[in-house]
Formats: sequence, C-alpha cells, structure tokens
Amino acid sequence: MRYFPGPMRELIKSLCNFPGVGEKSALRMALFILKREEGLSEQIAHAILKAKREICYCTRCGNFSEGEICEICKRDDRSSVICVVEQPQEILPVEKSGEFDGRYHVLGGALSPIDGVMPENLKIDALVSRVKEEDVKEVIIATNLNVEGEATASYLSALLKPLGVRVTRIAYGMPIGSDLEYADELTVGKAIAYRREI
Amino acid sequence: MRYFPGPMRELIKSLCNFPGVGEKSALRMALFILKREEGLSEQIAHAILKAKREICYCTRCGNFSEGEICEICKRDDRSSVICVVEQPQEILPVEKSGEFDGRYHVLGGALSPIDGVMPENLKIDALVSRVKEEDVKEVIIATNLNVEGEATASYLSALLKPLGVRVTRIAYGMPIGSDLEYADELTVGKAIAYRREI
Repeated sequence: MRYFPGPMRELIKSLCNFPGVGEKSALRMALFILKREEGLSEQIAHAILKAKREICYCTRCGNFSEGEICEICKRDDRSSVICVVEQPQEILPVEKSGEFDGRYHVLGGALSPIDGVMPENLKIDALVSRVKEEDVKEVIIATNLNVEGEATASYLSALLKPLGVRVTRIAYGMPIGSDLEYADELTVGKAIAYRREI
Repeated sequence: MRYFPGPMRELIKSLCNFPGVGEKSALRMALFILKREEGLSEQIAHAILKAKREICYCTRCGNFSEGEICEICKRDDRSSVICVVEQPQEILPVEKSGEFDGRYHVLGGALSPIDGVMPENLKIDALVSRVKEEDVKEVIIATNLNVEGEATASYLSALLKPLGVRVTRIAYGMPIGSDLEYADELTVGKAIAYRREI
C-alpha cells in the first residue's frame, strides 16, 4: 500500500477497522469513493457521524433509539408481553418474523461467569422492575440458543416465575427449509423431544 | 430495517453503496460504529472526506497523487521504461512484484468499441507525447489479458513502434503455484507456445 498517496493509505487503514473488511475490500471501497461524485462520499461520512451522535439506547427497553424512549416503547398498540433479547440488533429478526406484537427488553449480553458477566452486569433488575410495574402478561426469553443464553433463560425463569408472570422460551427445533441429513444431532434430538401433534 | 431509528437506517443505506456490501454487512458495520468510541467513527468519516478532497490524478502518468505529479514520477531513480496499465490501482501489483523500476502510464480503460470506448477516450495521445519527449527506451504494455486489453495492446504496438521505441507485452503463461489439471486450455496452450529453454 506504500505506493498509494498518504490520504489513500489512511482511508484504506480506516476502512480496515470495520468487521469483515480486509485490505482488499478496503481498497475496493476506497477506489469506489475516489471514483464516485463528491456528494456520495460526503453522504457516507455524514451518515457515520450523525448515527454515532444521534443514536442512543432506550432508557426503558435498551433498544436503539433517537430519543429517551424508542419507537416501539412509545407505541400504545403493543401487547403487554415482553420479549427478552441479548442485544438490540436481535430485535430486528423478531420484528421481521411478524409473530410478535409486544415490547422488548435488551439484557446487554448473557450470563457468562467465565467471562466475568454476572447478573449485576446485565439489565436484569430493570426487567424485574418492568414486570412488577407494567402489568406484564408474559415474558418470552429469546436469548441465544447456546450455553450462555440457556443459563440466562434458566436464571430469568427462576427469578420471574415467583412474581406470577408466565415465562416462556422460544422453541428449539429444525429450521424451516433444512435437511434432516445435514442437521446436527443435538438439534434433531430436540426436534424429536419437542415434537407436536399434527 | 424500518425497526431501527432514522439515523441508523440512513447509515445502513449509505454503507450499502459500497461495492460488495449488502444489507447484512452494512448492519454489521453500523453496529460496529455505534459500539466503538466516538474517535474511531470520526476518524473513518474524516478519512473518507480527506481522501476524496486531496487525492487527484498525476497529470503526467494518471496515477493517484496528492499533488500535480505523483510520487513515482517525481523520483529520479526510475528507469526510462514505461509500463502501460488500464487503471491506477493496477500499478500496485506491478510495484509489489519488484520486477519493474520504471514509470507508469494509466490509460483510463481499454479499447472497447461496443461500449463506446475509442482511442480518443483513453490517454493514448499523452502516451505518444511522453514516448516522443521523455527518451523512453521501452514501453511494456500491461493492459488486462482479455479481449479489450489485447486489442488495446495491438493498437498501441502499431502506434508506438514507428516511433522507434521497443514495445513489449507482459507474458502469457501459467500462474505460479497453479495445477496443470485445473488450468484452462487457452492458458495451457499459450504456456506451451511461449515455452522457454531451461
């Protein structure tokens, strides 16, 4: 890269910071910026600065938000069911599914004592307060389907059930469109164990 | 994406402009920007604006440059051999090879009448002037090894040879480390036709 002028090397180095962007992709992106009209590079640069400046987290649920309360929490047509996720970006697939019309609660991670993530490091107290204060009918725990996500689900279930709220876990099973032949045995095992009448 | 706040949607849309970046990669990049400290997003945004503002093309050879004349043209330890390439980014692999210590000339493309690219659309006149004025010993034509690149090489050869300069073409053959078994027959054919004594 030393054959490129300084500002181009700096740009390539900056773009390499992005996850999944190596030197070759960064070069391609830099060439694209140089080739296109000025307006587009300004638009991209300003979008980066604006998002960083204006996006914060909803003080109620932890979702991305432009103000103190996010768009989903603001709506009054949402049911009193809370879906608990680890990260704000996990709200997207749940919303896309169209199967959920409640509110969310973002924990900010999953329990992992080995990495030093204990209950007090997650937004668990806030969830308990919401369950107590918001007349919540059900809490669906949609943490990831791995060891940490499962441990967090068990912990939350033990904590929330005594409050008299229904606590559920998203289903294990075979993904839509998958082949039994290529599925891992743990998933097939769960799919059989949790089979249902048809 | 409509579930994200406006500035985040705008950022994702902006990043999708980059070649090879789809909605999922753009989301990953946007999340990265939101998670990391402010300094990094400012650095990336400024690198984009700075590169776009400060990088121009060398008026002599067409390479990327910070000033009127690029770093390579400025140096006086370069031999009087010109390597002709289609695009400025193609200077990089030639420099990296370490096999060339001359100067460059960027055509800005290759002849392609079907796409409306005629000799007058490329920096061919400028190349002819340089050959006449700069005491050039040899012109190595390193346009791409496809139909347009070959046509351009033939055209340049016919144009430059009458000026008394040596005109050469980069070699066809098998790439280093390649398997004969998986090579295409045209390449193998060229590798046999241009075989050399060992």
